[in-house]
Amino acid sequence: MFWCGLNKGKHSVCIDFTTAEGHELAMALITAPGPDAGMLLTNYAPRGWLSHEALRARRPDLIQLTIQGKRDGASAVDYTINPAVGIPFLTGPREAEGPVNHVLPAWDLLTGQMAATGLLAAERHRRRTGEGQHIKLALEDVALATLGNLGFIAEAERGGVRERIGNSLYGAFGGDFQCQDARLMIVALTLKQWTALCTALDLDAAVAELSRESGLDLSREGNRFRAREEIAALVRTRVVTRSLAELAPLFDRAGVCWSRYQTIAELVAHDPACSTANPLFAVTEQPGVGNILAPASPLDFAAGGRLPPIPAPCLGEDTDHVLRTLLGLSDAAIGDLRTRAIIAGPAKDP
Amino acid sequence: MFWCGLNKGKHSVCIDFTTAEGHELAMALITAPGPDAGMLLTNYAPRGWLSHEALRARRPDLIQLTIQGKRDGASAVDYTINPAVGIPFLTGPREAEGPVNHVLPAWDLLTGQMAATGLLAAERHRRRTGEGQHIKLALEDVALATLGNLGFIAEAERGGVRERIGNSLYGAFGGDFQCQDARLMIVALTLKQWTALCTALDLDAAVAELSRESGLDLSREGNRFRAREEIAALVRTRVVTRSLAELAPLFDRAGVCWSRYQTIAELVAHDPACSTANPLFAVTEQPGVGNILAPASPLDFAAGGRLPPIPAPCLGEDTDHVLRTLLGLSDAAIGDLRTRAIIAGPAKDP
Repeated sequence: MFWCGLNKGKHSVCIDFTTAEGHELAMALITAPGPDAGMLLTNYAPRGWLSHEALRARRPDLIQLTIQGKRDGASAVDYTINPAVGIPFLTGPREAEGPVNHVLPAWDLLTGQMAATGLLAAERHRRRTGEGQHIKLALEDVALATLGNLGFIAEAERGGVRERIGNSLYGAFGGDFQCQDARLMIVALTLKQWTALCTALDLDAAVAELSRESGLDLSREGNRFRAREEIAALVRTRVVTRSLAELAPLFDRAGVCWSRYQTIAELVAHDPACSTANPLFAVTEQPGVGNILAPASPLDFAAGGRLPPIPAPCLGEDTDHVLRTLLGLSDAAIGDLRTRAIIAGPAKDP
Repeated sequence: MFWCGLNKGKHSVCIDFTTAEGHELAMALITAPGPDAGMLLTNYAPRGWLSHEALRARRPDLIQLTIQGKRDGASAVDYTINPAVGIPFLTGPREAEGPVNHVLPAWDLLTGQMAATGLLAAERHRRRTGEGQHIKLALEDVALATLGNLGFIAEAERGGVRERIGNSLYGAFGGDFQCQDARLMIVALTLKQWTALCTALDLDAAVAELSRESGLDLSREGNRFRAREEIAALVRTRVVTRSLAELAPLFDRAGVCWSRYQTIAELVAHDPACSTANPLFAVTEQPGVGNILAPASPLDFAAGGRLPPIPAPCLGEDTDHVLRTLLGLSDAAIGDLRTRAIIAGPAKDP
């Protein structure tokens, strides 16, 4: 499922990289001519026949983006980067003793998106100057840069130690609340969201009293963070006795920023957002798997409309087609390469 | 710190949006001519003077990218999206009872990167066709699409229920190990990483025996996941009695994929990766804050070299400069706008 999800809409070509002829074919594909070609995204080390120098000798304006684990090329994955940047000591229940890793491969996802941005930026540069280039992007540096961008590094440099605060929001008001039949996340980050929450739960008088007692102006987000326990107590008593059916319209009418905790199974079974009622999704038929509710890109471009999701290919499904159209190989040449097992596919099992 | 980190290298212009003249100025900036202008990235609702129609009337090829919380425009933040997509029930210790939110705002980060990709893609389209467009990107859809891309939705559709597995890696071998003086994350996702681990810890004989007993071919990642408890027991006894100083060179020589758990304070104080020894970082002087170790982009472009990080501006620091250079306003006109408080800045306090 993981494989199918990540390889939607790709073309797959199978080439034997242990042979010199295989290298030749791959290099020819990578350095094919034209403004829409000559871009390589890879996590192979840029060495030997895949070195930027070797490839650039065939196409001087080649754009090559190499994704690395560590900056020095050493092996690293999302699950080893995250422990090293401290986030697991902030994640998890207040009383947790050890580190808590995230399950979402956030660093991988972010690195993939940055790679797309990097390729487009390099293509823009090539169009303007004619110049190609080699771009490196290390998973480790993505994580470190993000820590810096989010202010964690500057905070630690100044001796700030952030505590674990469970599911509460850092820096403003937000947290978990159990109503009669559901667990809710309720957030008041902006002033507008705070006003909406006070309106929906009729909190104004109680909040005014809390402000007086604490001396904190609760229209400021930092003060809402300071008084989060007291605010939570006010919210809790107003939420715990009501049902989701009662609270949801109340919250939505006032514009409260909230959601309901649900499992992935519940999301898939019951939430219209995760169905074809959301134009993001379409049902695709994935060979060997069956029907899958598959997402298109969340980027909803007005020009040209949204491209629907396309199933993942079998390994080598496009070998012949790509060699024919991109490299102009004849059927005889393709047949010969296939006989000698320099190329292959499609394979049934990915 | 958060604010400074996220606003590095930006230009800041202060305009009073409650006035019609303020709207005029902002619209003129948004629709300024030239191929490097005419792009608006915003989380304001595209209504009134900020509607795509109103702006396009001034520049027909305008590119506008609107970031939304929910697809319907309702308020949502990372902290309310995450509970609704089920990840908090997978994150956290096996014995945790409730949901565990991530602390890293992964959906925000991913949405920001996708917005950059979307703008560059739209600029590419505009260059080729002359056509601008309005692009929408909802935080909610980013999360849902990611769940789909990672295979979570297809898995749930087929009745698969993923269990909480604490800090273990899903689908292969990986987890926490305490050595004498440090807590380590050790991963064997690929065959190469698995072979390296077996070599480094002299596991070959024990693994061969485990394979025989369990009937599992442990060179396959799925089988390493099935036998993860047994493999962990083998690793644990070989790690627990040794020091980090002993294990680190052993692991690095063999090419093991591993890291050490450390807090952000430890990272910042002791790890060379989080210092100017890493070309990602430079020390910048942030007015009002002092020296900050700030990251550049993790995208290391060979062409032109890496741009160093630039401190965040004060609010309105560039008001005059931008109005003068982009709109060609005279000093007298700028002075007049300032007197009437249509524009402002720089302000000392962001």
